[in-house]
Amino acid sequence: MDYSEMHPQQVKELIREGKIDFQTSGMCNGYAQANLCILPEDYAFDFLLFCMRNPKPCPILEVGDVGSKEIKTMASHGDICKDFPKYRIWENGILKEEVTDISDYWRNDLVYFLIGCSFSFESEMLEAEIPVRHIQEGKNVPMFNTNIKLQPAGKFHGNMVVSMRPIPNDLVVKSVNVTAAMPRVHGAPVQIGNPEAIGISDIMKPDYGDSVTVNEGEIPVFWACGVTPQNAVMQSKPPFAITHAPGHMFITDVKNVNLKY
Amino acid sequence: MDYSEMHPQQVKELIREGKIDFQTSGMCNGYAQANLCILPEDYAFDFLLFCMRNPKPCPILEVGDVGSKEIKTMASHGDICKDFPKYRIWENGILKEEVTDISDYWRNDLVYFLIGCSFSFESEMLEAEIPVRHIQEGKNVPMFNTNIKLQPAGKFHGNMVVSMRPIPNDLVVKSVNVTAAMPRVHGAPVQIGNPEAIGISDIMKPDYGDSVTVNEGEIPVFWACGVTPQNAVMQSKPPFAITHAPGHMFITDVKNVNLKY
Repeated sequence: MDYSEMHPQQVKELIREGKIDFQTSGMCNGYAQANLCILPEDYAFDFLLFCMRNPKPCPILEVGDVGSKEIKTMASHGDICKDFPKYRIWENGILKEEVTDISDYWRNDLVYFLIGCSFSFESEMLEAEIPVRHIQEGKNVPMFNTNIKLQPAGKFHGNMVVSMRPIPNDLVVKSVNVTAAMPRVHGAPVQIGNPEAIGISDIMKPDYGDSVTVNEGEIPVFWACGVTPQNAVMQSKPPFAITHAPGHMFITDVKNVNLKY
Repeated sequence: MDYSEMHPQQVKELIREGKIDFQTSGMCNGYAQANLCILPEDYAFDFLLFCMRNPKPCPILEVGDVGSKEIKTMASHGDICKDFPKYRIWENGILKEEVTDISDYWRNDLVYFLIGCSFSFESEMLEAEIPVRHIQEGKNVPMFNTNIKLQPAGKFHGNMVVSMRPIPNDLVVKSVNVTAAMPRVHGAPVQIGNPEAIGISDIMKPDYGDSVTVNEGEIPVFWACGVTPQNAVMQSKPPFAITHAPGHMFITDVKNVNLKY
């Protein structure tokens, strides 16, 4: 089945029916995808501030009112509890369970945060004839912990997580330009060609996702990644949290071109 | 005394010494100026969310940690209690007092918000040879309530407040381009030439600030204004709040050109 040309509403119906419970890279070309973090009200101000202070890895797309499950801006009739293919339930920073619906876990003191995802700009890269290796190879994007320290805020601190895409030499500048135009889905790369400078010793051993082939004449290019806020949250060990499962995103009804400031 | 060519640190010394207790329009050409709102912790999440949902009138420049008086990003060694020429103290939404130092009012549960100010882009307009009438006439900028509804968030809701500058016909497009490049200090205008469309019946009777001359061949142009968040706050009647006095801004150490995304 080719999901790349489907409308987000069609894919979300398949997700609600349980027919899509796998990762969403390459689906619904042109539409922005979003990461998820759900926290109790007590943690909401610190987390929102953390995101604002670190907009590159944590670009906020939408935040719910306290207790609200409804997604209003990034989709019409979105349900935060049902519209991701897979969720993770956390207690005190420890992963407890993966589920495909969180309605039974919802509480009136919870606040959801939708955060921009680099999957959003991949269709723009393909449009610009820049290859996206993990899509070519049918894998999840490789993601790495780095030594790039983030601005702390209250309970939250941590280092940046990045995603990596191998880019042919002569398309590196183009890949910068294409992604720089989309700051709300991570924007321009944070590192080009020198993984060691940001604390990555082996690009074939990602900390999250899958490894992908890097061909002769290609440069590894690193973008800020939406796993960053999840990592920061887990380090602070909140009593309860819900996130999406890595790579299993919310597909918004908003086109990337409408996300530019 | 010509304050337009002074460095922000010089002006802030004069403010701390009590030698400047008047409005700051036209000071420190090229440097961004900021509005202030200080609220108790209980109101902080809703207010930050309100600003994020309404970035045009409420562009956040910096938010303090709970209880912190120190300005870190927008200035070095900034003191939120001393570095504005004039403050307003509010209780239950009612103006109680105007003071030039709030050190005695500070509490450990307070959070400060610095919000972008359209004074920031006036030096860029002058640089582009667009006249700024209230500077020419030595007045405060005229500001108006409008019928433009904002996105509510928790306790906060309200309408947009705008500032008005009369622009010669042949410079209107230029004024849009110059200000659109600076989204973190309100960006492009929200209305051009039709005050009634946004609920303003008489441009010679501003709700805040002073009225200015509109010459033949000039169009009133309206920009989102940092008084907006103050208004929204006061409508929600928080038990305690502090703001700057209109026009009496914080002058940051950050140049406007460095505020572009």
